[in-house]
Amino acid sequence: MRILIINGPNLNMLGKREPGIYGSDTLEKINQEIASHAEANNISVEFVQSNTEGVIVDYIQGSHGESGFDGIILNAGAFTHYSYAIRDAISSVDTPVVEVHLSNIHAREEFRHKSVLAGVCIGQISGFGKYSYTLALEYFRINNRR
Amino acid sequence: MRILIINGPNLNMLGKREPGIYGSDTLEKINQEIASHAEANNISVEFVQSNTEGVIVDYIQGSHGESGFDGIILNAGAFTHYSYAIRDAISSVDTPVVEVHLSNIHAREEFRHKSVLAGVCIGQISGFGKYSYTLALEYFRINNRR
Amino acid sequence: MRILIINGPNLNMLGKREPGIYGSDTLEKINQEIASHAEANNISVEFVQSNTEGVIVDYIQGSHGESGFDGIILNAGAFTHYSYAIRDAISSVDTPVVEVHLSNIHAREEFRHKSVLAGVCIGQISGFGKYSYTLALEYFRINNRR
Amino acid sequence: MRILIINGPNLNMLGKREPGIYGSDTLEKINQEIASHAEANNISVEFVQSNTEGVIVDYIQGSHGESGFDGIILNAGAFTHYSYAIRDAISSVDTPVVEVHLSNIHAREEFRHKSVLAGVCIGQISGFGKYSYTLALEYFRINNRR
Amino acid sequence: MRILIINGPNLNMLGKREPGIYGSDTLEKINQEIASHAEANNISVEFVQSNTEGVIVDYIQGSHGESGFDGIILNAGAFTHYSYAIRDAISSVDTPVVEVHLSNIHAREEFRHKSVLAGVCIGQISGFGKYSYTLALEYFRINNRR
Amino acid sequence: MRILIINGPNLNMLGKREPGIYGSDTLEKINQEIASHAEANNISVEFVQSNTEGVIVDYIQGSHGESGFDGIILNAGAFTHYSYAIRDAISSVDTPVVEVHLSNIHAREEFRHKSVLAGVCIGQISGFGKYSYTLALEYFRINNRR
Amino acid sequence: MRILIINGPNLNMLGKREPGIYGSDTLEKINQEIASHAEANNISVEFVQSNTEGVIVDYIQGSHGESGFDGIILNAGAFTHYSYAIRDAISSVDTPVVEVHLSNIHAREEFRHKSVLAGVCIGQISGFGKYSYTLALEYFRINNRR
Amino acid sequence: MRILIINGPNLNMLGKREPGIYGSDTLEKINQEIASHAEANNISVEFVQSNTEGVIVDYIQGSHGESGFDGIILNAGAFTHYSYAIRDAISSVDTPVVEVHLSNIHAREEFRHKSVLAGVCIGQISGFGKYSYTLALEYFRINNRR
Amino acid sequence: MRILIINGPNLNMLGKREPGIYGSDTLEKINQEIASHAEANNISVEFVQSNTEGVIVDYIQGSHGESGFDGIILNAGAFTHYSYAIRDAISSVDTPVVEVHLSNIHAREEFRHKSVLAGVCIGQISGFGKYSYTLALEYFRINNRR
Amino acid sequence: MRILIINGPNLNMLGKREPGIYGSDTLEKINQEIASHAEANNISVEFVQSNTEGVIVDYIQGSHGESGFDGIILNAGAFTHYSYAIRDAISSVDTPVVEVHLSNIHAREEFRHKSVLAGVCIGQISGFGKYSYTLALEYFRINNRR
Amino acid sequence: MRILIINGPNLNMLGKREPGIYGSDTLEKINQEIASHAEANNISVEFVQSNTEGVIVDYIQGSHGESGFDGIILNAGAFTHYSYAIRDAISSVDTPVVEVHLSNIHAREEFRHKSVLAGVCIGQISGFGKYSYTLALEYFRINNRR
Amino acid sequence: MRILIINGPNLNMLGKREPGIYGSDTLEKINQEIASHAEANNISVEFVQSNTEGVIVDYIQGSHGESGFDGIILNAGAFTHYSYAIRDAISSVDTPVVEVHLSNIHAREEFRHKSVLAGVCIGQISGFGKYSYTLALEYFRINNRR
Repeated sequence: MRILIINGPNLNMLGKREPGIYGSDTLEKINQEIASHAEANNISVEFVQSNTEGVIVDYIQGSHGESGFDGIILNAGAFTHYSYAIRDAISSVDTPVVEVHLSNIHAREEFRHKSVLAGVCIGQISGFGKYSYTLALEYFRINNRR
Repeated sequence: MRILIINGPNLNMLGKREPGIYGSDTLEKINQEIASHAEANNISVEFVQSNTEGVIVDYIQGSHGESGFDGIILNAGAFTHYSYAIRDAISSVDTPVVEVHLSNIHAREEFRHKSVLAGVCIGQISGFGKYSYTLALEYFRINNRR
Repeated sequence: MRILIINGPNLNMLGKREPGIYGSDTLEKINQEIASHAEANNISVEFVQSNTEGVIVDYIQGSHGESGFDGIILNAGAFTHYSYAIRDAISSVDTPVVEVHLSNIHAREEFRHKSVLAGVCIGQISGFGKYSYTLALEYFRINNRR
Repeated sequence: MRILIINGPNLNMLGKREPGIYGSDTLEKINQEIASHAEANNISVEFVQSNTEGVIVDYIQGSHGESGFDGIILNAGAFTHYSYAIRDAISSVDTPVVEVHLSNIHAREEFRHKSVLAGVCIGQISGFGKYSYTLALEYFRINNRR
Repeated sequence: MRILIINGPNLNMLGKREPGIYGSDTLEKINQEIASHAEANNISVEFVQSNTEGVIVDYIQGSHGESGFDGIILNAGAFTHYSYAIRDAISSVDTPVVEVHLSNIHAREEFRHKSVLAGVCIGQISGFGKYSYTLALEYFRINNRR
Repeated sequence: MRILIINGPNLNMLGKREPGIYGSDTLEKINQEIASHAEANNISVEFVQSNTEGVIVDYIQGSHGESGFDGIILNAGAFTHYSYAIRDAISSVDTPVVEVHLSNIHAREEFRHKSVLAGVCIGQISGFGKYSYTLALEYFRINNRR
Repeated sequence: MRILIINGPNLNMLGKREPGIYGSDTLEKINQEIASHAEANNISVEFVQSNTEGVIVDYIQGSHGESGFDGIILNAGAFTHYSYAIRDAISSVDTPVVEVHLSNIHAREEFRHKSVLAGVCIGQISGFGKYSYTLALEYFRINNRR
Repeated sequence: MRILIINGPNLNMLGKREPGIYGSDTLEKINQEIASHAEANNISVEFVQSNTEGVIVDYIQGSHGESGFDGIILNAGAFTHYSYAIRDAISSVDTPVVEVHLSNIHAREEFRHKSVLAGVCIGQISGFGKYSYTLALEYFRINNRR
Repeated sequence: MRILIINGPNLNMLGKREPGIYGSDTLEKINQEIASHAEANNISVEFVQSNTEGVIVDYIQGSHGESGFDGIILNAGAFTHYSYAIRDAISSVDTPVVEVHLSNIHAREEFRHKSVLAGVCIGQISGFGKYSYTLALEYFRINNRR
Repeated sequence: MRILIINGPNLNMLGKREPGIYGSDTLEKINQEIASHAEANNISVEFVQSNTEGVIVDYIQGSHGESGFDGIILNAGAFTHYSYAIRDAISSVDTPVVEVHLSNIHAREEFRHKSVLAGVCIGQISGFGKYSYTLALEYFRINNRR
Repeated sequence: MRILIINGPNLNMLGKREPGIYGSDTLEKINQEIASHAEANNISVEFVQSNTEGVIVDYIQGSHGESGFDGIILNAGAFTHYSYAIRDAISSVDTPVVEVHLSNIHAREEFRHKSVLAGVCIGQISGFGKYSYTLALEYFRINNRR
Repeated sequence: MRILIINGPNLNMLGKREPGIYGSDTLEKINQEIASHAEANNISVEFVQSNTEGVIVDYIQGSHGESGFDGIILNAGAFTHYSYAIRDAISSVDTPVVEVHLSNIHAREEFRHKSVLAGVCIGQISGFGKYSYTLALEYFRINNRR
C-alpha cells in the first residue's frame, strides 16, 4: 500500500510557528515518526509540501492512474477553508482522501470551522496533533485489511 | 486505562437504520469489535447508550472523580448539533472527550456540519464508520504511552 | 390497521393551557373522540404522551418491526422545531409518520414556522385543532384502502 | 355547503409533469374523485384553475359576499412561496381558506419550505397527494357539522 | 396636466377589506374625492385598477409617449414588495411615478417594509389613508407650477 | 393649529451640502417657504434644528402636554436609521408625528432604506425635496378639517 | 427544427427603454435579425412576448407535446429573479430551455444576480445584447447536428 | 408564600465545574444560603434539579393548580438557549417564573446571549452568582407585599 | 457605600409614557422609593438622568477616581441597544456597573433583545419595574457585606 | 482576430473527471474542435491551462498591449467563485473577456452560483458543454464583423 | 497649513482606560507630541474632544468655509461604528478627513471591524497608537507639498 | 533597519490599470520614490512582487530568522480579502507586518471592506496612494527610534 501525505501552506513552519497551537515538533520530525509508523506496518509513504494551491492541485491529480497511490492524507492548512480548486481536484481522482488537521479546527476561530473539502473526502481527523496523521494511516491500514 | 464509550440517540438502531449511510453492522457487533481491539491493547472499555439527552449528561458527569475514566469516546448522534447541555457537561469534567461520528458529518446535510460539542472536545474523528471508534481508542492508547 | 398516536411536550396540559390558541378540550377528551372515530372505521389506535425527547425517540423506535404499527401520527409539540434526534428516529424506522399540529404553526411565531421533522414525514397537517388528528387518521384509512 | 377549489400555476399539467413527485393522475381525474367524494357527503364543489396570479386573486375575491362560498381549498402552486397579492386577497374576504399541497413542501427544496399564505389561512395540509384535497374537504364537512 | 392613478391588487376590495387597517371608504368613494380635488385644481385624472401584475406593467408602458401622462400615482399593493417587472416598467418610461400607500408600510409586517419599486420612483408617501393620493396629486400640482 | 418642525443633524448645512442630492436652497429659505405656506393656511409653525440626538428627544418631549403642539413634522436626518432614543421619545408623547425626508431614502444607499422611527409615526413622505415638508403640513391641514 | 422565442416583461419596450443598458434596437428589429439568422440555418422560429407571468407559463406549457417545439429560448426579464411559477412550467415540459439575457445580469444590481430559472434550464447566455439570442439559436443548431 | 427553585443541567456540578466562571460553592451550599434567606423572610422554598429537559417540563407543570406554588425561580442552564419545550411549559401554567443565571449570559459566548425562555418569564436576573437567586426571591417578597 | 443611579433617554417621561409597558409611577416617585430603600440600608444614592448619550458618558467617567462611587446602576434606555460609546465609557472606569431595565427587554421587540452594554457590566436585571433598581441596590448591599 | 482561451484548475482532467457532469471528451479533444471551428472562421486561437491562480493572472496580464489578443475566453473553473485576484487582473487589461462554463453553474451546488468574475466580464455562457467555448468564439466573430 | 484634530468619546480617558489596549499616555501628552511634531513641520494644529456626537458634528461643520481648516484628523472612537450623522457631516464639508484609530480596529471585536465613516474619508490609519495621528499629519504634509 | 516591501497580484500593472482608482504612476516609479525616502532615512528596503499566493507566503516565511527583516510592508492586493494562507504565514513569523492599500478599501465595493489579514498585522494604512507605503515606512522609522 502506497500513501501520499500532502501538507499545505505554512506547515513547513511547524515547530517555528505558534507552538502553543501546533506543538514544538518540526514537520521533518513529524514526517520521520509517520515514516517509522508506516514502515512498521508495511506501508510505503511519500511526503510533499507546498505553499501554493496550484501545486497541491497538481499533487492530487498526480496521484491518479495506474502508477498512483492507494490513498492521500491531506492537511490543506488554510486552503481547507476556501480552496474549491483543491475540492475539485479531489473529485477529479479516484484516490480516497482523508482530511487531517493538527488542531481541532472546530474549536478555533469561526472561519476555521468550515471545510470546503470535507464534502468530497472519506472522513476528517482533527485535533490530535501529529497523531492526526498516524490515525489516518491507521485507517488506511485497517480498511485495507478488510 | 479505562475508556467510556457513549452512544447517543438512535445509535441503538444501527444495522436496522439506513444501512446506505451507517452500514449493516449492529451496535452490539461494533461494540464487540471495539472491545476486542481494546483488550488486545490492554484497555478497559465500558459501553453505554441512551436516546435521552439528560442521561448522556449524567454519564459524562459520572466519568468524573477518583473512580472515574481516563477518557470518553462520544458519538452524540443528533445531539451533536444542538445539545449545549452536553457541551456544558463536557466542560464540567476533567475527563478528555473525543468526538466521533460514523458518517462524515461535514459531507451530509447542512445542519450536520456544525458540532456544538467540538469547542470543548480534544478532537473529532468523522466518517470512518466503526473505525471512527477504533481510531479514537488508538489515540488514547498512543497518547497514554507518551 | 394499527396506528400509534404520539403527543409530545405540554400536550398533556391541553384544556388547561392557553385555550385561546389550543381550545378548551383536554387531551383525554380529544383522545376519546379520536378513538371513537377510529373504532367506527375499524382502526386500532394507541395513545402515548411524553415531555421527554428520549422517550418519544423510544416510542418511535418501538413502532418498528413485526409486531409494530402501520403508521404513526406525531404531534411533537415544541420538539418539532429543534429535535434532530426525533428526526433521526423517524428515519430509522419504516413506519410512515404523519406530522400534525393543533394550531397553524406557519401562522404563529417565526420559530414555529420551521419543522425539522417534515423532511422525513409523509406529510403535515397543521391548524385544524383536534381535527388535525382525525384527518391524519383519515389519510391512513383512505391510503390503506387503495 | 359550497366549496371552491382553486388550483394555481402548472397544476393543469398534473399527470404530465414530473410524475415522480406529483403522481400520474391528471387534474381532471383528481377533480372527479374529489367531486364524487363531495357529492357523497352532500357538499357542492366548484373547480377553477389558472396560471395567472391576478386571476387567482379574482377567484378569491369572488368567493366573498352573499352568494359566495363556505370555504376555499387553495393549492396555489409556486405562488405559495411569493404571492403576497394572493395573501392579501385571502385577508380581504371572510371565506375560510385551507391551503393544500400535493407534495410535502417542507421536505423539498429550501424555497418551497416557506408559505407566504399560511399566515392568513385556517390550516395547511401538505404531502398527501390527491388526498390533500379530500382531507381539506373532510375538514370543512366535520367542522360544519359542529 | 394629466395624471394616471394606478391601483394594484386587492385595492378594489377597499371598504370591504380589513377596515381596521385600510378604512371604511370604498375605492370608488376615494376615487371620487380625488377626482373632485383634481378638478378643483385643474388636473385631469384617470383611474385604473388591476389584480394582475402584467396589466399594471401594460398601464405603465401605456403612459409613455406623446399622448401620454404627466405623472403616475401608483399604489402597487402587495406587488410593491416583489414585482421587479413593475420596477422595470417604471424604468422603461419617462413619466415620473409617485409611490403611495394607504397604510404606513414601514410600521407593519417585516415583508412590507421593503419596496422594490422605490429605487425608480420620485418619492414615496405612505400612511395617510386616502390622503396619500391627494398629497401625491398636490406634489404634481406644486411641482408643475414651478 | 400649531405644528413643530424639527430638523436633525446636518440639515443646517442645506444648500452648502451635496446640492446634487439635497438641492441648493438653504434651510432658512426652505423654512420661509414653509412658513408662508403655513400662514396662508392659518397654521402656526415653529422651527428647531439640532445636530444632537438628545436635544431632538427634548424637543419631542416638549411638544407634549397642554400648551403643546398639534403635530410634529420630523426630518431626523441620519438619526432616522439608528436612533431608538428618538423612537422612544415619539412613543412617549401623544403628538402625532409625520416623518419626512428631502431625498427618497429608499432609492439611496442600503443603510438609508430602513427607518427605525417609522414604526411609531403616522406616515412617511420621502423624496419630494422641500415639498416633503409642505405635503406633511398639507396632511395636518386636511386631516384637521375632518 | 422549430424554436420558440419567448420574451418577458418590458422587452417590448426595447429601444425605447434605457438604451445605455439595453441598446437602441427595438424588439421587432432584433426579432427580424434572429429570423434571418434562423432562416439561413434552416431553423423555424416563432416569437411571443408578454408582460404577464401566467401567459408565459401558458406559452411554455403549450410548447409541450407532439406538435410542440424542439427548444425554447427564454428571456424572462424581471421574472427571472422571482417567478417560481415559470420555473415549475419549465420543469413540467420536456422541451429544452435556454435562458438568455441582453445585459450581463451578474454584473448589475444584486437582485439580478440570482436566476430562479437557471436550475431547470440547459444553460444561460448573458450579456451579449441581441447576440445572446443568436448564440442560443446557434446552440440548438450545433447540438441538433450531433 | 411558596417558591419552587428549579436548576437545570450541570448545575449539580457547581463548585466542581469551571470555578473561574461559576464560583467554588456547591449547589448544596448555595441552596442552604437561599433557604436561610427565605426562612428569614417567611418564604417556603423547595429545590429540584435535573439534567433532563422533560423532567424540568414536569416540574413546571407540577407547580400549577390549587396546591401549587406562588412562583418559580428557574435557572435552566444550557436549556435556556434552545428548549422551546420548557418555554411552552412556562406558558402552560399561571405560576410566575423568574429566569436567573449565575454568570452574565449576555457577556459570554454568542450562543448564550439568546434566551428562548425570556419571552414568557416575568424578568431575568443574570450575572450575580448565587445572589441571582436571592434577588429573585427578594422580588417575590417585595411584590407579594404590595 | 455610594451608588450613582443613571437613567437614560425618555425615562424622565415615566408615568406619562406608555403606562401599559412602564407603569404609572413617575421617575421622581420611583427615585423617592429607591432613596428610602437605600437610606434604610445606609447606602448613599445620587440620581441623574439625561436624554443625551454624551452626557451619560460624562456621568460614567465622572464616577471614576478617588471621590468616586462604589457602583453604578444604569438604565440606559434605548441607548442600551446601540451606544458603543457608553460601552467604552463603562470599560474606561473601575466602578462596577449593574444594567437594569423596567420591562423585560428580552420579551419585547427584536431590537430590544440585544444589549451592547452587557458585555462590560457585572450583570443585568430586567423586567421587574421599579424593583429592578431596588434589586440592583440589594446586590451592591449584599456583595459589599461579604 | 486572435483569441486566447484560458482554462483554469482541473480542466486538464476533463474526460477523466466526473464524466456525468463534464462529459467524456478530454481537454485536448475539445481544444482541437475549437481550433477547427476557429480556423474555419479565420480566427487564430491559443490555448493555455493552469491549476495556479497566479499563472492565470499572468496570462490575463500578458494579453494586454500592442502584441496582445482581441479577446479572452476564460473558464476559470473553481477560481470563478473566489478569485478576486483574477477579477482584478481582468479589470487591469483592455482585452474583453467572455466567461464560460461547461456545466450550468447556476444549477449546481450553492457555492457555484456566484461568480466573482462576472462583474468585469462582457458576458457569461454557462451549461453548453464544449459548445460554451464555440459560442463564445461565435460572439467574438459576430461582434468583430460589425 | 491648519489641521483640526478631533477626538471622540472616551478618548479623554486615555492613559486611565485599558492601558493594555490603548497605552499609558494621556490624551494631553499625546497632543503635546503631535503639536511638537506639527510645529517642527510648520503645521498649525488645533485639538478638540467631545463625548457627544452632535458636538463632533458641529466641529466638522465648523471646519468648513473661508476661515476653515485644510484638513481634519478624526478619531471618532466608538462613533466610528454607528454614527451616520458624523458621516453626513463629513460629506457636508469640503475639508478632507483622515480617519485614525489608536488600536487596529480590524483586529478587535467584530463590531469594531466596520467603519461607517470610511466611505467618505480620504483614508484610514489604524493600529499605530499615538503614531496614527503623526502619520496622518505626515500625509497632509507630504500631500500639501505636491 | 531592513524592511521588505511585498506587493501582491496585479500591482505590477499599476499605471496601466484603472488610473482613476490607482493613479498613473507605475510600480517601478513608486518603488523608486520609496527607495529614495528610505535611503534618506537610513533604511534599507527590498521590493518583491508576485501574482501567486504561495510565492507571497514564501516571501513572508523567508523574512523570518537571523538574517531576516525588521519589518514587512504588505500590499496583498485582492488576496487581502480571502487568503487565510497569507494570514497564517504572517502568524508564523515574528516580523511585524504593516498592511497597506493604495485606495481606501473601506470606501469601495463591499467585498473589499473586509481584510482577513488585519487580525494578525500591526496596523493598516489605506487610501493614501503611494504615500500609504511611505507612511508605513515612517511608522517603522519612528517606532525604531523609541
